[in-house]
Amino acid sequence: MSVIYNRVALIGLGLIAGSMAHAMRRANLAAEIVGTARSAETRSVAREIGLCDRVVDSAAEAVQGADLVVLAVPIGAMGAVAEEIGPHLKPGATVSDVGSVKRAVIEAVAPHIPQGVHFIPGHPLAGTEHSGPKSGFASLFENRWCLLVPPENTDPEAMARLRALWEGMGAHVEEMDADHHDLVLAVTSHAPHLIAYTMVGVADDLRRVTDGEVIKYSAAGFRDFTRIAASDPTMWRDVFLSNKDATLEILGRFTEELFALQRAIRTGDGAHLFDYFTRTRAIRRGIIEAGQDTDAPDFGRSKPGS
Amino acid sequence: MSVIYNRVALIGLGLIAGSMAHAMRRANLAAEIVGTARSAETRSVAREIGLCDRVVDSAAEAVQGADLVVLAVPIGAMGAVAEEIGPHLKPGATVSDVGSVKRAVIEAVAPHIPQGVHFIPGHPLAGTEHSGPKSGFASLFENRWCLLVPPENTDPEAMARLRALWEGMGAHVEEMDADHHDLVLAVTSHAPHLIAYTMVGVADDLRRVTDGEVIKYSAAGFRDFTRIAASDPTMWRDVFLSNKDATLEILGRFTEELFALQRAIRTGDGAHLFDYFTRTRAIRRGIIEAGQDTDAPDFGRSKPGS
Repeated sequence: MSVIYNRVALIGLGLIAGSMAHAMRRANLAAEIVGTARSAETRSVAREIGLCDRVVDSAAEAVQGADLVVLAVPIGAMGAVAEEIGPHLKPGATVSDVGSVKRAVIEAVAPHIPQGVHFIPGHPLAGTEHSGPKSGFASLFENRWCLLVPPENTDPEAMARLRALWEGMGAHVEEMDADHHDLVLAVTSHAPHLIAYTMVGVADDLRRVTDGEVIKYSAAGFRDFTRIAASDPTMWRDVFLSNKDATLEILGRFTEELFALQRAIRTGDGAHLFDYFTRTRAIRRGIIEAGQDTDAPDFGRSKPGS
Repeated sequence: MSVIYNRVALIGLGLIAGSMAHAMRRANLAAEIVGTARSAETRSVAREIGLCDRVVDSAAEAVQGADLVVLAVPIGAMGAVAEEIGPHLKPGATVSDVGSVKRAVIEAVAPHIPQGVHFIPGHPLAGTEHSGPKSGFASLFENRWCLLVPPENTDPEAMARLRALWEGMGAHVEEMDADHHDLVLAVTSHAPHLIAYTMVGVADDLRRVTDGEVIKYSAAGFRDFTRIAASDPTMWRDVFLSNKDATLEILGRFTEELFALQRAIRTGDGAHLFDYFTRTRAIRRGIIEAGQDTDAPDFGRSKPGS
């Protein structure tokens, strides 16, 4: 692979930016990677492990001379970062982001992007429950989707370069409209996360079943929820607050459906339950056939404690 | 390990019974394993792959001369199987089961157990989303819990043998009261399964987000739900119908909590969300420390499609 951007600036050095640094290096996609983070501790860890070529102390400094700037901070912080870097962006540079919601990011960031700088929001659908500068790894984006949300009249060459970067890191790239993105993600990610958080919180709240029991016997299904519910709290707070309408709409549909299944349980309507569960099983099959999960039992989990 | 039961009869040859057959053989825990299943196709597959020493055509035949009889059929079928085998059980034999609900199984099975036969219900907390006679494997129970629910005045020697069998298959054994078992499982397993089924059903129902999109972009969180929602429909229908009260109670608590989080989203109460998500993250840590899941990112999933 050949160098796509001469200098890339990563603003925020968590799981996604860290994985980008590893993936760009592996494929030699950037001649220089400059990084920064708001927390001095994160910057210090990043320097220690050599995550970037240079770690600098401010976003304004990081973007100087950069051909690509990636905003990889919680959604609630995007506006302030954009305001800070706006005056320091190099003419012809591209600004992108990795936020899980697109409409809110566009509203917060676009006003601060000067004429002559390209702004192409993006969202790699990849992650783990871990966070921080040490959590990244080069293969995170392999065979995963990266959704790009180019505004009208986006420069085709700027778009082609950004696409090539993501493909060079192993991702498949699709273009999508911002509002449709936010609805699709509400279904596939935001509502499931809120539901997992809720279930884990309920279990923790119960008095008659001890915490110890919940933890001990979690392998029966609950532990899959706890993995999702272990994701970064700041990031997810911002996701829900900034994709409010779509998330609440899906949760409303979820509640309706849950009530219908509860009624089937209460009235002993076994046929309804059986049909429902048969239908959901087919969806799993579709996901495996689409190459988006492993067919190995239990995700091919390595046995814990052995 | 030495032989614990001379002859073990497995009634039903799905994931759990099949895994027991593999695990008992590996550790030489049974001199002879006899199996049966209601479906002729299942029996035929089991014979073909040599799952048991003998596969016979009826439960009544399978239990003849057996020292341990394991009922591994859906909960709704337990009563009929118990009625069928009752007259054929060997005096001094032990009957156990592997059902996910204990009070309903006791009510269905106990009346058919003759004097002089021990009945010790059990529940191994282990499984995958796969089912059928080919889905079992010897290590399924390793480092997993098996809950035994002995009635009052259970013969200590019969209890010790059954415990030794499960330990020989790699499980940790705990004793528990039937009603408490059903409540604990409603929290750790039954409610999470219903919620996962619901979420997957909702996604499938939406018109504005296509099935193709849901499947394609499932890696963002949704796919973990689909694994749970791919579990055996008959088994789960019976679980919900037979653990109705505890499941509905936990779902009621879940709905309350979900409404509180929805309200926090609607009103923009970020502090409430952040605190909630921070608390649930700590629970995940507890599960990993208890050795009930892997700390590897994304369950250490092997990369699909690569």
